[in-house]
Amino acid sequence: MKALVESAQATKTASEVTALLDTETKNRALESMADALTDNAESIVAANAKDMERGRANGTPEPMLDRLMLTADRIAGIAAGVRQVAALPDPVGEIMNEWTTAEGLNIKKVRVPMGVIGMIYEARPNVTVDAASLAFKAGSAILLRGSASAYESNAELVRVLRAALEKQGVTPDAVCLVEDPGHDAVDRMLKLRGLVDLIIPRGGASLIRNAVLNATVPVIETGTGNCHVYIDETADYDMAERIVINAKTQRTGVCNAMETLLVQEDWAKQHLERLLKTMTKKNVELHGDEAAGSYCPGVIPATEDDWANEYLRLAMAVGVVPDVRAAVSHINRYGTRHTECIVTETPENAAYFQKAVDAAVVNVNASTRFTDGFMFGFGAELGISTQKLHARGPMGLREITSYKYLVTGDGQTRA
Amino acid sequence: MKALVESAQATKTASEVTALLDTETKNRALESMADALTDNAESIVAANAKDMERGRANGTPEPMLDRLMLTADRIAGIAAGVRQVAALPDPVGEIMNEWTTAEGLNIKKVRVPMGVIGMIYEARPNVTVDAASLAFKAGSAILLRGSASAYESNAELVRVLRAALEKQGVTPDAVCLVEDPGHDAVDRMLKLRGLVDLIIPRGGASLIRNAVLNATVPVIETGTGNCHVYIDETADYDMAERIVINAKTQRTGVCNAMETLLVQEDWAKQHLERLLKTMTKKNVELHGDEAAGSYCPGVIPATEDDWANEYLRLAMAVGVVPDVRAAVSHINRYGTRHTECIVTETPENAAYFQKAVDAAVVNVNASTRFTDGFMFGFGAELGISTQKLHARGPMGLREITSYKYLVTGDGQTRA
Repeated sequence: MKALVESAQATKTASEVTALLDTETKNRALESMADALTDNAESIVAANAKDMERGRANGTPEPMLDRLMLTADRIAGIAAGVRQVAALPDPVGEIMNEWTTAEGLNIKKVRVPMGVIGMIYEARPNVTVDAASLAFKAGSAILLRGSASAYESNAELVRVLRAALEKQGVTPDAVCLVEDPGHDAVDRMLKLRGLVDLIIPRGGASLIRNAVLNATVPVIETGTGNCHVYIDETADYDMAERIVINAKTQRTGVCNAMETLLVQEDWAKQHLERLLKTMTKKNVELHGDEAAGSYCPGVIPATEDDWANEYLRLAMAVGVVPDVRAAVSHINRYGTRHTECIVTETPENAAYFQKAVDAAVVNVNASTRFTDGFMFGFGAELGISTQKLHARGPMGLREITSYKYLVTGDGQTRA
Repeated sequence: MKALVESAQATKTASEVTALLDTETKNRALESMADALTDNAESIVAANAKDMERGRANGTPEPMLDRLMLTADRIAGIAAGVRQVAALPDPVGEIMNEWTTAEGLNIKKVRVPMGVIGMIYEARPNVTVDAASLAFKAGSAILLRGSASAYESNAELVRVLRAALEKQGVTPDAVCLVEDPGHDAVDRMLKLRGLVDLIIPRGGASLIRNAVLNATVPVIETGTGNCHVYIDETADYDMAERIVINAKTQRTGVCNAMETLLVQEDWAKQHLERLLKTMTKKNVELHGDEAAGSYCPGVIPATEDDWANEYLRLAMAVGVVPDVRAAVSHINRYGTRHTECIVTETPENAAYFQKAVDAAVVNVNASTRFTDGFMFGFGAELGISTQKLHARGPMGLREITSYKYLVTGDGQTRA
């Protein structure tokens, strides 16, 4: 078993190699990883079975067991994801800008790999492969720290990926799993400044909070989505209903689902009763302010918690507001800067909403559920950033790179 | 006196206003700030005199007193800097990318203000105005925490800037000074996650280290520059000498000065004796490895410290290496990812060096001293980033912005 620091050092050394790989070599290695996953489906499922067994013995809830479970089919799906990453354009080496200075220096701003990406995540073994393939394509090495409850699955997946890399003549340390079993390994990993360039925490609110509050390595905060839909005075009823149903019910456990509905008061007078009745029929539990409650029996009075937190289930908060300004103000107070939506036929209100709402993604007349890498056309993503530094919204290949300036002269010195 | 949290809350509220200001309003306010600085030169110099007096009484070293001192001339220079910022293009609202998805959604990636920028810096009152004007032009509000030893100067400068903003009908809280006198105010400021979007520490290594290690707010690490010049086998002697002299002696106390010289061994045999003699004549103290010492009497044997740290004075470390690979390896081990330079006539070595060196700026045949916002054509800068997240190298207006995605549909929902 390797100590955490040894794993990190190995990953860093590997990152100096992966940074220089050409696109063809990277794609060949990714194809080889995909083949290896399907070829080794049996050993992966066997390792996963140990995690599943322990999970069941520990009384892990069924939805979490389902996320943990690997089958031959699921492994084939994960392998297909790796092939999709191979097919994406290589972000490394892209010239983002180029100019010549007054002194005659040629300056190129060039996209470069991040270096070592540390990933801290929960018991979803698919993240192991998704993150490893994205980081590798972006020229970085990755240090993976999944949940202890998925350790056997992750260890086998990483063994298979590393063997595939080695077969292609690429250093296997491009993909390292934290073997250190200490529960404080995460906290020590968060402080590996100088060895790790970026940490991406992916999982529940407490996992992310721990990373953000304790890391000395730069972190990109992901995930929490207390998303709102605001129905403006001029909104078309059918469109509003369609968007609200989709944003709340199409999938409930995801960060881009709607958690709070805000409705302009005149629209509410005309339509809110009907809309809330529809949501009740869809088994959505309603929490609301007094005005919302007046349109529908059984609305539970909303507390501060209802406005501030995600439900991640068939429940939503409903508030009635005087106008778009009040809606923006509510959203900027309670939102988590993920995805916010206005439904309106008034272009000025749409423009004001998009400008004034502080969020990664601000939608006009479109469901909040579109915020993800595939829907945006980036391909697979490493998470959805809710902070303003570096990357905001879905993080695809480009979002996990850095850049540098290449300055070329013919002997210039500064006067 | 306002408590830290009150100042931060006021800045945050102001940031919602500054984010929406149009370019003309911002420029008018900046011109008004510049006028106010020169109009109030007398009161500013008087406030500064109190800091100077206390500094002298405390035995502050002369170079630090010089940085602290404000005169009518210096204030005019600072005001001219504000006018230059007014003249720069507004980064806010720039459409960085635009496309339509398969579902017919129009997506625009638009540059937006960062929000609240926290600035922690030493006793250089000019930073107060530089940072405030750059943040304001970039649509952000700024929370300033300068050194206690410059408090009177900063308080008067901020009073003058705020009055100018107010005169233009802009909320004065766009520029807030931390009034809280507690020495732990910095540490509390570093943890104002949710109120402050970004902290930029600017100053000595310990100030920056404290920010990086203790902040929960995202930080951009700036400044430390353990910069190298590597002279390759084919380097032209005159060009190499010119660059080394410029990089080491043109200004010594700055982050983009050279601290270590690496020389390819064959070039060393031919030229190092002459080069080191020249540097000795320029009063540069030499520390070196055994090989370097063999070319020049009086070279002090270099320790680990000599390779790892900045001198920031007329001193340098000298090492002899077998080839460009060894040079890159040394630089990636000891460098601080600021600016690195190769002098060579071999294009392949130049290309390898630029690709393999992990630094914000990598120069071929040009002095390290060019790394700054003005030389790059960005205008004034808020610092030079040495981390890989968000911004790397000189940070001008664009580098202190964020972005968001504006998604416009006509009722789309996710299938």
